[in-house]
Amino acid sequence: MTVIATSSSLGLAAKLSRLLSRDLLVAEERVFPDGEKYLRIPRKLEGDVVLVHSLHQPQDERFVQLLLAVDAVKGAGATRLAVVVPYFAYARQDKRFLEGEPVSVGTLLKAVEAAGADALVVVDIHKPSSLDEWLTIPHRNVLPIKELVGYFRGKLLDPVVLAPDKGALHRAQLAAQLLGAECDYLEKSRDRVTGEVRIAPKNVNVSGRDVLFVDDIISTGGTLAAAAKEVLTLGARRVYAACTHALLVSGALDKLYAAGVEEVVATDTVPSPVSKVSVAESVAEAAREVLS
Amino acid sequence: MTVIATSSSLGLAAKLSRLLSRDLLVAEERVFPDGEKYLRIPRKLEGDVVLVHSLHQPQDERFVQLLLAVDAVKGAGATRLAVVVPYFAYARQDKRFLEGEPVSVGTLLKAVEAAGADALVVVDIHKPSSLDEWLTIPHRNVLPIKELVGYFRGKLLDPVVLAPDKGALHRAQLAAQLLGAECDYLEKSRDRVTGEVRIAPKNVNVSGRDVLFVDDIISTGGTLAAAAKEVLTLGARRVYAACTHALLVSGALDKLYAAGVEEVVATDTVPSPVSKVSVAESVAEAAREVLS
Repeated sequence: MTVIATSSSLGLAAKLSRLLSRDLLVAEERVFPDGEKYLRIPRKLEGDVVLVHSLHQPQDERFVQLLLAVDAVKGAGATRLAVVVPYFAYARQDKRFLEGEPVSVGTLLKAVEAAGADALVVVDIHKPSSLDEWLTIPHRNVLPIKELVGYFRGKLLDPVVLAPDKGALHRAQLAAQLLGAECDYLEKSRDRVTGEVRIAPKNVNVSGRDVLFVDDIISTGGTLAAAAKEVLTLGARRVYAACTHALLVSGALDKLYAAGVEEVVATDTVPSPVSKVSVAESVAEAAREVLS
Repeated sequence: MTVIATSSSLGLAAKLSRLLSRDLLVAEERVFPDGEKYLRIPRKLEGDVVLVHSLHQPQDERFVQLLLAVDAVKGAGATRLAVVVPYFAYARQDKRFLEGEPVSVGTLLKAVEAAGADALVVVDIHKPSSLDEWLTIPHRNVLPIKELVGYFRGKLLDPVVLAPDKGALHRAQLAAQLLGAECDYLEKSRDRVTGEVRIAPKNVNVSGRDVLFVDDIISTGGTLAAAAKEVLTLGARRVYAACTHALLVSGALDKLYAAGVEEVVATDTVPSPVSKVSVAESVAEAAREVLS
């Protein structure tokens, strides 16, 4: 088995290659004067191949590179190609919220399959059923809760795991189970007299306790910063945030620290200053499964 | 029939809508904080739809927008969708020149079809047979030689039409035929004594005559600038350049004028300061054909 890396996920691909094979191949990449991307697999391939390529910013350029890489790998002789996309962009547009919108994640998934992928592994995609809905090839969604929680084991005092909203509750519940902690989600409520909107844990009292927020993505960090301020106001001892994909746009980290967050922890699906845990082992297992 | 425009080809789409229908619909476009593109068709659709979206810089972003637009248009109820891509990017990587390379144009064409396009119209794609090779849907390649030559009719003195290389000769021959002019292509030769590489017309004498270069793309303009200098050294009276797609990267126009080119003329497949002729009529005809 050969593991192929692009510049998009070099570190994770190197870890994967140590877990799956001894054979790590790095694609050649260039940009033409007009901005078109060039990519080349530097030698012939045979047998099963795992291509690792994440879709963080600039996501559209990385998406075109992904399609080109899939075609190049198949053209270079790979028998079966499992594509690992640690962060699959556009996954939050998973239905037509308004008439006339695209189902962006479906459109991108179909393109990856059309390019020649034989299997797909993603990590914590916003809605896992998107994969069943839009792909005919084998696929796996890796949920790296064990990895994220492992970082916090023994560090938290009487912890509460919070999901930033009800939709993210499943992920928080898994984390709470592994930590042996209580779990809740934040709910908005409007004061009937003042009209003021408050965010607060629905059921659990956070006073004097450590709070761990768990979510799939931290983008601008706006919602999370507001939530952190709220639970600190409610008397939380310390606030931590764990996410799978640290996109961290528009000074998100500064915003979170300014809001009183003690530490932010993410995985290596997106390279970032807070990518402190690796999804490599779980992804290696999933890649083995889809190729078995 | 409805014509749908994106910001990528608003002018050409407006012309097309006047030729094909009275109904021009402009897609709503936004960018999320993390850089993901959002697009929406502002009303329900029915019947045949023509979507116009060109792939000039930033070509990868425009490519993702194209896939999203195709999905959105089909989702909004279009019965049949003819996609017009005036400039189809990545068309020069039309085979594996080296082992391990992708066939970029094939990869992108397949993605457009997988997104749901029912027919495709492109303008002067680098190798028209790419369409037959990679698409199963109906398709047309519009060659806008009549439009480009029309601009020069009556302006040139004893003209010679030159292709910058043998590969581009077909396009130059068509232009020469329409102009009633001689035609030739440039050939490199190496001086046996000095070793110096010269570029010169293979057969025709350009002395005292107007030269019109005809090519599909002007990108950096480097080759064309060198060629212009050569034919001026050989005594050409004036040098003009006509191309379909004026990409004009890295100060290409300045380079061409500095090399002595009198005027550069291109079509509106790519919006540019030299897009002086429109492909709208030919594209309208091709769109009608693929939907008939």
